Amino acid sequence: MASAVVLLSGGLDSTTALAVARDAGHDCYALTVRYGQLHEVELEAARAVAAALHARDHRIVTVDLSALASSALTTPGIAVPKDRSLAEIGAQGDVPVTYVPARNTVLLSLALAWAESLNVRDIYIGCNVLDASGYPDCRPEFVRAFEALAQLGTRHGGFRIHAPLIELSKADIIRLGTRLGVDYSMTHSCYDPQGGRACGRCDACALRKKGFGEAGVADPTRYA
Amino acid sequence: MASAVVLLSGGLDSTTALAVARDAGHDCYALTVRYGQLHEVELEAARAVAAALHARDHRIVTVDLSALASSALTTPGIAVPKDRSLAEIGAQGDVPVTYVPARNTVLLSLALAWAESLNVRDIYIGCNVLDASGYPDCRPEFVRAFEALAQLGTRHGGFRIHAPLIELSKADIIRLGTRLGVDYSMTHSCYDPQGGRACGRCDACALRKKGFGEAGVADPTRYA
Repeated sequence: MASAVVLLSGGLDSTTALAVARDAGHDCYALTVRYGQLHEVELEAARAVAAALHARDHRIVTVDLSALASSALTTPGIAVPKDRSLAEIGAQGDVPVTYVPARNTVLLSLALAWAESLNVRDIYIGCNVLDASGYPDCRPEFVRAFEALAQLGTRHGGFRIHAPLIELSKADIIRLGTRLGVDYSMTHSCYDPQGGRACGRCDACALRKKGFGEAGVADPTRYA
Repeated sequence: MASAVVLLSGGLDSTTALAVARDAGHDCYALTVRYGQLHEVELEAARAVAAALHARDHRIVTVDLSALASSALTTPGIAVPKDRSLAEIGAQGDVPVTYVPARNTVLLSLALAWAESLNVRDIYIGCNVLDASGYPDCRPEFVRAFEALAQLGTRHGGFRIHAPLIELSKADIIRLGTRLGVDYSMTHSCYDPQGGRACGRCDACALRKKGFGEAGVADPTRYA
């Protein structure tokens, strides 16, 4: 069974990406990056997911990105937007304050370092552009550019960057994961959790709620 | 004066790159990454250089790369090669055990995160391919691929990745830095320092010695 490195935040998307990688026959090395998220509940979700989906190994590594990159997710005092409409969230060209500069470049570079060390060629990332927040580093052309970079910045190249959810709607992602047996109650998407529960009002909660509704799947999220 | 982010390890090359960026008129934000180097002497050199070359700001950020990437520079027990000839060091296609998987991809991604947060478009890296150890992530095509990635993985793009030393010999780098007033006694290149002094026998020491010799500049390195 070919191995793969899978970026795992503990959210709905990366958990589904891990399930897809497993379903494709990969033995999975899950990588969670503690990049200065204000909320540790994400890391707890990642641990639970990695165990439930039988990751062969799960590493949580720290990078002090919050010392460099300002964002509502990493910088105390920048408020997470609440109660935005789906039209506002999906507005073209609007990158919200929850965007963390160069985050996916940093995450993929760490995944690449581990993959090269493990002699693994397949890397999975759960990013997507539909029903998402308009982050530039979730686009297909970004993923392709990183794949091109990975061939040049390593000993032997040959890496494949898989973004299996990139053009799926949130509902389709939930349908796919449900079919693969994912228990979404252990995942965490909220940008501003209150005592371990989802706020229900941030962009991530809004997109997640919409996804469960459209997929016709009961939403297992524990809201505050 | 346009600002620039400059990757600064405290070595001869990155110090020269900082001097070049200053000479080009940039106000410089120096970034040192503590990626799990076994030797803290590099970080002390970076602090001294940033101060001497009047960096506007100097950040030392930590990334737990040694948990993912095995290398003689980050993994206790992998020996640093010693007493190799210049022909051995420069052999085509040979990537030595001092190569840290995906290191320059990780370093540039962190520089990109800081640059985007600062609204700075110019990033400098001191990598070079001549008189170097044959690391894949020092090649011009790697730097160009990262520049292409940076346009796609950020809000506005427009980034320029400068590698002003990339096709210079070590002697030319030393001549250039000397002309710009660099005091190389404060830089540190050795892969295996002994009590703060250079070993004089690793690849980095061999290339550095050769460079000072060919440049006709007195070598200020303190050898063990």
